[in-house]
Amino acid sequence: MPEKPVINWGLEGVYVNESSICKVDGQNGKLWYRGYKIEDLAKYSNFEEVSYLLLYGKLPTKENLEKFQEKLRSRRDIPDEVLAVIKTMSKRAHPMDVLRTVTSMLSMYDNQVMTRDMALNEDKIITLIAKLSSLTAAIGRIRKGYDYIEPDEKLDHAQNFLYMLHGKKPNDSDRKIIDLMFILHAEHSTNASTFASLVTASTLADVYSSVISGISTLKGPLHGGADEAALKMMYAIGEPDNTEKYILEALDGKQRIMGFGHRVYKVYDPRAKIVREYLEKRLQEKPTEEVRKLLQIALRAEKLMIEKLGNTKGIWPNIDFFAGPLYRSVDIEAELFTPIFVSSRISGWGSHILEYWQNNKLFRPLEWYMGKLDLQYIPIEKRTE
Amino acid sequence: MPEKPVINWGLEGVYVNESSICKVDGQNGKLWYRGYKIEDLAKYSNFEEVSYLLLYGKLPTKENLEKFQEKLRSRRDIPDEVLAVIKTMSKRAHPMDVLRTVTSMLSMYDNQVMTRDMALNEDKIITLIAKLSSLTAAIGRIRKGYDYIEPDEKLDHAQNFLYMLHGKKPNDSDRKIIDLMFILHAEHSTNASTFASLVTASTLADVYSSVISGISTLKGPLHGGADEAALKMMYAIGEPDNTEKYILEALDGKQRIMGFGHRVYKVYDPRAKIVREYLEKRLQEKPTEEVRKLLQIALRAEKLMIEKLGNTKGIWPNIDFFAGPLYRSVDIEAELFTPIFVSSRISGWGSHILEYWQNNKLFRPLEWYMGKLDLQYIPIEKRTE
Repeated sequence: MPEKPVINWGLEGVYVNESSICKVDGQNGKLWYRGYKIEDLAKYSNFEEVSYLLLYGKLPTKENLEKFQEKLRSRRDIPDEVLAVIKTMSKRAHPMDVLRTVTSMLSMYDNQVMTRDMALNEDKIITLIAKLSSLTAAIGRIRKGYDYIEPDEKLDHAQNFLYMLHGKKPNDSDRKIIDLMFILHAEHSTNASTFASLVTASTLADVYSSVISGISTLKGPLHGGADEAALKMMYAIGEPDNTEKYILEALDGKQRIMGFGHRVYKVYDPRAKIVREYLEKRLQEKPTEEVRKLLQIALRAEKLMIEKLGNTKGIWPNIDFFAGPLYRSVDIEAELFTPIFVSSRISGWGSHILEYWQNNKLFRPLEWYMGKLDLQYIPIEKRTE
Repeated sequence: MPEKPVINWGLEGVYVNESSICKVDGQNGKLWYRGYKIEDLAKYSNFEEVSYLLLYGKLPTKENLEKFQEKLRSRRDIPDEVLAVIKTMSKRAHPMDVLRTVTSMLSMYDNQVMTRDMALNEDKIITLIAKLSSLTAAIGRIRKGYDYIEPDEKLDHAQNFLYMLHGKKPNDSDRKIIDLMFILHAEHSTNASTFASLVTASTLADVYSSVISGISTLKGPLHGGADEAALKMMYAIGEPDNTEKYILEALDGKQRIMGFGHRVYKVYDPRAKIVREYLEKRLQEKPTEEVRKLLQIALRAEKLMIEKLGNTKGIWPNIDFFAGPLYRSVDIEAELFTPIFVSSRISGWGSHILEYWQNNKLFRPLEWYMGKLDLQYIPIEKRTE
């Protein structure tokens, strides 16, 4: 009998890759995309530029950014057959299930799905960056019973998303909120969804298949689904004065409080800080009763959680915690949070897939077998319960 | 600067899980499902029983198998909206892309997609075992321009698959070939697709999302897609007398020979042995010129590959190598090989997902950052190429 090996549950602390895309410093609460601080990108950049940066490893010149944006603007359309599926599914399915399905369907419009030409694969990713936002907006709109709105090439990426969702061109403040969330969600090293997309890519499956593994994985409430779950918790709390009682009872019952804790960050998530700051600013600009209440609940929950678990257990708010109230200030419903996350993270998935293929190795780990061996096959007539 | 850690490329040799489902002994070329030898299961069992065994950990009594089969028989139907998508996509997309899309679409018929009730999740997996075969048969038929054939509850799983694909009830010999391939493909520990489905499941995403990551990953030619690729290589060789020249040239050009080599097996894949044996038997029963030629090519390629790489590099035929000619003997085209693999491996994926959830931990590995840090954000007007 061989000795039982170390089991790397959850691959905690296990390095699977070398990468030049993103650095997460979980001990100091810092994050860089391609060497640029997330705070600078949030303040000065925009999603199109960040996507270019992630894909190509450097900030674009004006001319290169314009060419890149032109590609994105011209590829936002949704084919009729895909719209038909959105209409069919939206009556009963969660937007993430619809988005996963129609992204999969997009492969039918590509006659070189399996190509190993990396220029073509890069181009597929640019197409997906353009289309996932359109699909998310269309799904958000159609599920409410409204008609589909065609994309508008005159608008930038964040503007066009809000236009296709709400039917009117957004003001600058609304635009910035969406652009910000797109920037903050674009990349985060080998999180579960990026890792899943690399596992798929490592078999030399195509770009669509790899991205679909990412979408499937982001859906889980321990990952991208957490922002939806965190907002729903705030709704369940209802009134700010209920916050402490709710949280304490949940902790007593060993329930997980969504939006807190992170495998890598053992201090305050730098993205959560940025979101919280924008949320407070936003409330001054456009005070609504709903968002004011949500912010109060969030701040009281945060204070209590940090007292209880922050310094002792390293459990702090993550980006998902303040995202919900901020999205609500742009009138976006909870079920769209994760599809928006997908529409942004596609840039990170795509960059990682292309990078991994430069040095591809099939992911094929082992598992430790705990069962019996060499059981005798007994004919069915002779078996007993 | 911290020291560079060990990078576990491809997770080779890394244990990620404890499991009682499957044991692969790569040094001795042995395989067990739940403790039963693959040779016994191939000889005495059938796919329905093997699926029960994988899911529940023991062989069923007669009564339990009948109940299980009854569930499978009654859930084979394909909803009209799904058939419409198969028709739309089949004109231009690969069957794997269609299957991935319509499996994703199935989530819309389930109003408890996200449940954490494991009895309900087990039930979803049984539904998927029933439906993936139907979907594969329908895709195979519709892409050839034929009308969809409704499932027949009187037929067993393998019979019904061939009936829905070819439009007539198969004879026992054809039935056994399909049943055999379903048995042999049902499970293989933490291969890339099963592992991808566990990464997805580990976020507490739902059964559909987890299975779709498996499908996406199985497509790759370094994994499930290898049987299609291996047959296409045999077609490219064309005549048995061309075999040695083709293989030697491919080896000289550092090309990968599909259907040879395996991360875990360093000797002859026990499944490949079984497939080869059935293929030789099959050829005596139902000799066709195509299959005879393919077998000759396969045997000559095998002989040469083993001489060149078998003992020195541990590269031997795997199941994908002889699968193609055997499928051709039942008149199944290459593009359906991987969808059939999916229709079988669903039992392994499902068993693994349910098992992993009993002891769930989010997969979140690390990557080693090779890039720069703290670059200064330069305004776009001031950037140069």
